[in-house]
Amino acid sequence: MTNHPRYTTDEMADVWSDKTRFENMLKVEVAAAKSMADHGIIPPDAADAIVNGAGFDMKRLREIEGETRHETIAFLTAVKENIGDAARYLHYGMTSSDVLDTALSLQLQQSTVLIRKALITLLTALYSQIQKHRTTPCIGRSHGIHAEPTTFGLKLAGHYAAFARNLARLDVAAKEVCVCQLSGAVGTFPILPPEIEEGVADALGLAVEPVSTQVIPRDRHAAYFSALALIAGSIENLATEIRHLQRTEVLEVEEAFRKGQKGSSAMPHKKNPILSENLTGLARIVRSTVVPALENQTLWHERDMSHSSVERFIAPQAMATLEFALLRLAGVVDNLVVHSDRMQSNLDALHGLVFSQRVLLALSEGGASREDAYEIVQRNAMKVWNEEGVFYELLAADPDVMAIISQEDLKDIFDLENALKNIPQVIDRCFKVYPVTEVS
Amino acid sequence: MTNHPRYTTDEMADVWSDKTRFENMLKVEVAAAKSMADHGIIPPDAADAIVNGAGFDMKRLREIEGETRHETIAFLTAVKENIGDAARYLHYGMTSSDVLDTALSLQLQQSTVLIRKALITLLTALYSQIQKHRTTPCIGRSHGIHAEPTTFGLKLAGHYAAFARNLARLDVAAKEVCVCQLSGAVGTFPILPPEIEEGVADALGLAVEPVSTQVIPRDRHAAYFSALALIAGSIENLATEIRHLQRTEVLEVEEAFRKGQKGSSAMPHKKNPILSENLTGLARIVRSTVVPALENQTLWHERDMSHSSVERFIAPQAMATLEFALLRLAGVVDNLVVHSDRMQSNLDALHGLVFSQRVLLALSEGGASREDAYEIVQRNAMKVWNEEGVFYELLAADPDVMAIISQEDLKDIFDLENALKNIPQVIDRCFKVYPVTEVS
Amino acid sequence: MTNHPRYTTDEMADVWSDKTRFENMLKVEVAAAKSMADHGIIPPDAADAIVNGAGFDMKRLREIEGETRHETIAFLTAVKENIGDAARYLHYGMTSSDVLDTALSLQLQQSTVLIRKALITLLTALYSQIQKHRTTPCIGRSHGIHAEPTTFGLKLAGHYAAFARNLARLDVAAKEVCVCQLSGAVGTFPILPPEIEEGVADALGLAVEPVSTQVIPRDRHAAYFSALALIAGSIENLATEIRHLQRTEVLEVEEAFRKGQKGSSAMPHKKNPILSENLTGLARIVRSTVVPALENQTLWHERDMSHSSVERFIAPQAMATLEFALLRLAGVVDNLVVHSDRMQSNLDALHGLVFSQRVLLALSEGGASREDAYEIVQRNAMKVWNEEGVFYELLAADPDVMAIISQEDLKDIFDLENALKNIPQVIDRCFKVYPVTEVS
Amino acid sequence: MTNHPRYTTDEMADVWSDKTRFENMLKVEVAAAKSMADHGIIPPDAADAIVNGAGFDMKRLREIEGETRHETIAFLTAVKENIGDAARYLHYGMTSSDVLDTALSLQLQQSTVLIRKALITLLTALYSQIQKHRTTPCIGRSHGIHAEPTTFGLKLAGHYAAFARNLARLDVAAKEVCVCQLSGAVGTFPILPPEIEEGVADALGLAVEPVSTQVIPRDRHAAYFSALALIAGSIENLATEIRHLQRTEVLEVEEAFRKGQKGSSAMPHKKNPILSENLTGLARIVRSTVVPALENQTLWHERDMSHSSVERFIAPQAMATLEFALLRLAGVVDNLVVHSDRMQSNLDALHGLVFSQRVLLALSEGGASREDAYEIVQRNAMKVWNEEGVFYELLAADPDVMAIISQEDLKDIFDLENALKNIPQVIDRCFKVYPVTEVS
Repeated sequence: MTNHPRYTTDEMADVWSDKTRFENMLKVEVAAAKSMADHGIIPPDAADAIVNGAGFDMKRLREIEGETRHETIAFLTAVKENIGDAARYLHYGMTSSDVLDTALSLQLQQSTVLIRKALITLLTALYSQIQKHRTTPCIGRSHGIHAEPTTFGLKLAGHYAAFARNLARLDVAAKEVCVCQLSGAVGTFPILPPEIEEGVADALGLAVEPVSTQVIPRDRHAAYFSALALIAGSIENLATEIRHLQRTEVLEVEEAFRKGQKGSSAMPHKKNPILSENLTGLARIVRSTVVPALENQTLWHERDMSHSSVERFIAPQAMATLEFALLRLAGVVDNLVVHSDRMQSNLDALHGLVFSQRVLLALSEGGASREDAYEIVQRNAMKVWNEEGVFYELLAADPDVMAIISQEDLKDIFDLENALKNIPQVIDRCFKVYPVTEVS
Repeated sequence: MTNHPRYTTDEMADVWSDKTRFENMLKVEVAAAKSMADHGIIPPDAADAIVNGAGFDMKRLREIEGETRHETIAFLTAVKENIGDAARYLHYGMTSSDVLDTALSLQLQQSTVLIRKALITLLTALYSQIQKHRTTPCIGRSHGIHAEPTTFGLKLAGHYAAFARNLARLDVAAKEVCVCQLSGAVGTFPILPPEIEEGVADALGLAVEPVSTQVIPRDRHAAYFSALALIAGSIENLATEIRHLQRTEVLEVEEAFRKGQKGSSAMPHKKNPILSENLTGLARIVRSTVVPALENQTLWHERDMSHSSVERFIAPQAMATLEFALLRLAGVVDNLVVHSDRMQSNLDALHGLVFSQRVLLALSEGGASREDAYEIVQRNAMKVWNEEGVFYELLAADPDVMAIISQEDLKDIFDLENALKNIPQVIDRCFKVYPVTEVS
Repeated sequence: MTNHPRYTTDEMADVWSDKTRFENMLKVEVAAAKSMADHGIIPPDAADAIVNGAGFDMKRLREIEGETRHETIAFLTAVKENIGDAARYLHYGMTSSDVLDTALSLQLQQSTVLIRKALITLLTALYSQIQKHRTTPCIGRSHGIHAEPTTFGLKLAGHYAAFARNLARLDVAAKEVCVCQLSGAVGTFPILPPEIEEGVADALGLAVEPVSTQVIPRDRHAAYFSALALIAGSIENLATEIRHLQRTEVLEVEEAFRKGQKGSSAMPHKKNPILSENLTGLARIVRSTVVPALENQTLWHERDMSHSSVERFIAPQAMATLEFALLRLAGVVDNLVVHSDRMQSNLDALHGLVFSQRVLLALSEGGASREDAYEIVQRNAMKVWNEEGVFYELLAADPDVMAIISQEDLKDIFDLENALKNIPQVIDRCFKVYPVTEVS
Repeated sequence: MTNHPRYTTDEMADVWSDKTRFENMLKVEVAAAKSMADHGIIPPDAADAIVNGAGFDMKRLREIEGETRHETIAFLTAVKENIGDAARYLHYGMTSSDVLDTALSLQLQQSTVLIRKALITLLTALYSQIQKHRTTPCIGRSHGIHAEPTTFGLKLAGHYAAFARNLARLDVAAKEVCVCQLSGAVGTFPILPPEIEEGVADALGLAVEPVSTQVIPRDRHAAYFSALALIAGSIENLATEIRHLQRTEVLEVEEAFRKGQKGSSAMPHKKNPILSENLTGLARIVRSTVVPALENQTLWHERDMSHSSVERFIAPQAMATLEFALLRLAGVVDNLVVHSDRMQSNLDALHGLVFSQRVLLALSEGGASREDAYEIVQRNAMKVWNEEGVFYELLAADPDVMAIISQEDLKDIFDLENALKNIPQVIDRCFKVYPVTEVS
């Protein structure tokens, strides 16, 4: 197991345990036996015996593996010991990869369920904060520099939308990767006809792989890992936003601080956004699995084994880390301490300069040439910048401004509510395109 | 331009030329003017003037850029010079990114058309070779070692299926990335209401970006590059297969050799699979764009500019190289010299040993214990391996075998047609799942 | 050419021009002819004729290439046309790769000179700023949160040290990659003995490749690209620091703003750190070349061509972009506007809380139990945090503190100079380990 | 732990165990105490007590961690419980990162010892096979196509040289990363002077970090991971060579097959190069750690925590996997079954065509024009290709050939020994540049 226990939920650890892996393999064998019996390839009694006896003792399995040094053979032998005479029909006409690759599909399916749930938990947390802060004003920044006002709700809505897209991507990728093969040594169905495969696919809730070699083609898995990497990218994006907003000089939000959490009680300013920093790192880890997954697409002829050790690493790692990260981020969002007063004071910090573009436009609309408008705004802005006054007041006292813009219009320009008026519509549009109902 | 002229078609070079880029920007400005007139924000006359006057002189644009050192301003100024009084309504209430990012969407849309066409060209070439070689027997290999017989058509069908999936991925990703934004400096629609954006989106055949910041969120672009990387992975996979099959010792296929092509006429064995080798390299280049695209997802607050230089490199590079590679691969497939005689002789090279698993199964089914069956097959196989006979004949002469398997059954086991009997069904299934009609 | 003209210096464009490439090839051919004459393999007259006639007409070369569709043959033919009878001795016993790969080494050598120079320009700019700001106090931050005081000079010294290490890495990698091969079709020296290779290596200032195949082994090139990626990582690190320090809320430094630079004159707060943002993107591009370079290490047998298209992309791209980025960063550092007043006011913003750890230690040293010390500091820190006072004053008025710490010691604790006292020693140590003299 | 137990040696597992990690931390604390006593900062008795009492009970440590949820504090508390009154001097004036990062350096040092040993084991195995097969002829291939003869020893010598370079790279990178810091919260030595750090560095056999922030700068670690990735690339290269040579059609070498190893006894042709395939996958895993390591270079200000979770994954993973892979590859090389008879028969497979270039040169040297020489060789080569004769005999019977080349010279041209004559010199040169003595 190459996931990190510190960054793995119990549920996900269970999915990637050897036990689950062998159970998934057993599901494939059982489904195959039933499908073969349905098509008259093995006796119904044998199938029944396999269904009823299906099981294995982990200790015994490992014992056999120690002797044979071949895990799949050990698994089959351990199962056969439980079945009796029907054992000869277990795995009949199948090749190891049929079992292993289809069982991997089941494992990916199970992982997806958990990742999907974590994504929805995060979306729900975001939804709730967006609604709470639909109209909480804060400064919008480009290049790290104050630009124009926005709301904290809209900020989060952008992230919500990205994760909603990620949910759709996950669903598409999961559908792609959850396929079943039972096509024999090199995909030619030399012994079992394609009908058996179809039966197994149906029984396991997987799609049939239309053309397999000895394995399920790895573009499917690469697409799945790409989807995970995209989700990780969105995690990094939101985590970075939170880290920025928690900076001492900004301090618009803070990760919730557990009561009694040691290390900073004597330094109240030292509430570090360590969860978000950690999420930045975890995102890198998930992202780093995408290149090996893409390299795995190229197998020699009807398969080589180069992909298998790679998957042994990246599959549990990407999936466990991603689920954990999504849940951690959901927690951060849910418990986020939002300092709306600080948002307001940051917004006000430039004494109205953030409205300069609107003034420019109004002057221009009022008939001033672009050059004149610029000059007028510039000379007043510079005074504000040099702390010689507040922008609105300076403009109101500038006859060149007042010759073009009415008092009322000037008020409108500096009216925060006015500046934010279209935001609720955008947020509503967001939830219309990415409905919460579809999500939960 | 960071694509390589050697690996770029004229059509794609055109899409990524500065001229097309500015033309796309102009399309956005024109559509915006019309939408604003429709909603009464600017006078209809102004919109008409913009529509009619829309154009720019490239030389003049560059001249202005030399002065202002700002490309977008130079573009706007150059256009304005063509429009007259209505110039003041050009770009009204918009922010540079509204134009640039929406224009990029148009460029991606145009690139997608070309990549899509190239993909279909490749699929068509594969389809035709598959049909020609549906039943051409060849050896299937796992681990580079002879495993069981297959057909060359089935081999290619696996690649066809992967590229058909890639086509679907491209379509999904293109749909995701072809969006329009007109949301102002930080995505709050401070001046123009969302309706203007909708009008522009409609006019340009793009979807509306539900929540933008100053830019279209970069998870969309990252998803698009991921799709390109997946296609590249499939190219590498097929190119590697061809390189393997063209090895001197294997020589089952050869890239077509242009008459008069120098360098090897005196060395007829020296027909190098250089196109396929080249494709392996080009695939790496396309793949290498996926990590920077994923890193681009994280922008600071309402946007920073870190993504823009990255896209200036990876967008033309990935798209041009991929289209070129697809067309080159289509050519390789189309003109592939298939040595079916050599396929047959390679298939026969192990004197029937490739049927050993089938013999094993038959013995087992006939009642032999797994151990006995193994021992019988092994002793005969070893003789073949030591070149002391042909597998079929040795088995036919082995009383332990003949006690269990009838002469007729043994013939069946070694019957190539029998071994390949399910392949046509698999190929048909492939074309049913991934119909050619949908493709062309 | 796959570098971006916008991000390429003229000098580097020249190195990666076709002209330089052919000239480097010519240098190899000429050196080979001389070496062969020295060892009696070709007549001295022939070598003289080659040396004297060496040259080619680019137009003619392209003409021949149009016919032969083989660039190397076209090059040789074009050169031969200048040489007369001695032409038969040009390229005698050599293989294309001998020329191409050795010429690539020359190109890498030439690129390295430029990158090295750019690195030194940056180091010099850093050195000068460090000296200027050795003792300029500013706040040190961990997790984006104020931690303890430092100086701006020390901040930069860390970056200086990283780039000094990068210079050493570049030198090692360049030495590794600048090798010469003249070993024939598969590295066996079938016609020319190793002595000829040694002569060429000497003449060109390259080392001999001890064991080549048809090509110089690609681990050398991968090591070179790794060195470039490390430099890029350090660029991103410093660029990110500048972007942080230029944030509206922090504003301790600013990229110099060119007089008359448009777009922000009316918004004086809108001085965006666009160069540093751009550098972040360029760093990603350079970094993205490292994986394909590592993938290139694996060639089939005595060589395949998969690496060559990759190098055609990544070599000019990584080198041009990196040199450009280093020079751009040097410019940013050189012209950086440092707001030391703002550094001081940020440092003071927490009213002395940044000294809380020192107080804690003093209490502890003075005999208080860890728990008591904590409680004392905490209750005072909380008052500061709630804006109920300045830390120093609160402590000075707290009898529990004054029972342990003398007035004088408390002053010392809050003495900024005291806190920074060891910094000059660290900076001196830095320049001792990474001497400037070695650098310039 | 994110290394895979299946791909980890016991020694390496031990290095990356929590126990070793805490022991390394303890070494740092002990060395710090001694250094502080040496410089009169803490009482000598306290240092003695710390040295003597140094230790911790793992169970107790975990118990405390459960309460405090802070691993480093738990570690310190557990150690303090062993020390008594001197406990107050443990970790005096230090910051967590001083301990953690310096302890990481120790861990990297310990890992390097193992990786280094594994590299030397591999080099020794290669050396021995090279000596055994110095003159074993085999065909050299470019593009997978037969080119000219070489020897198996020379083939391996190229790989030996690459791994020898890798050893040098590892040593450089390890030296770079094995540094010590004890510089306080943000690298300013606010409490302990630089001399203490120097004492600790000396005691631990590490170099002093000239300028640290809160952490050792991450370009050092990125350089280390780059070195590991380069080694992985060379592993993939050699593993790929072996996989190629073991293909059924080539079969020049085979991985040793353990007696009794199941799965292929009945299919003697089914000896799969699974170890080499596995190594290809493991190489991808190690390579995939390089991008996150490079991304880690960028930390915010005096540090953020984004790097730490990344390292928790990639450090054990890259190092354990690489050591394992090197040892596995050494085993493959050591036990490689070399079929020199098959090498010879493959060499002969083209009936002398592989000497065609030499014939061409001889004709040319003998005075034939390039065109004539070509035509002569071509017409004979074509006959060979069409299986109408053996190249040598056809040429010997061609009057146009014999008019230019003497019988003796023709024999020389086709003389294998002659073709291979310079190889021993190349191999000797290899061992001179990369001496074995230095290695073992």
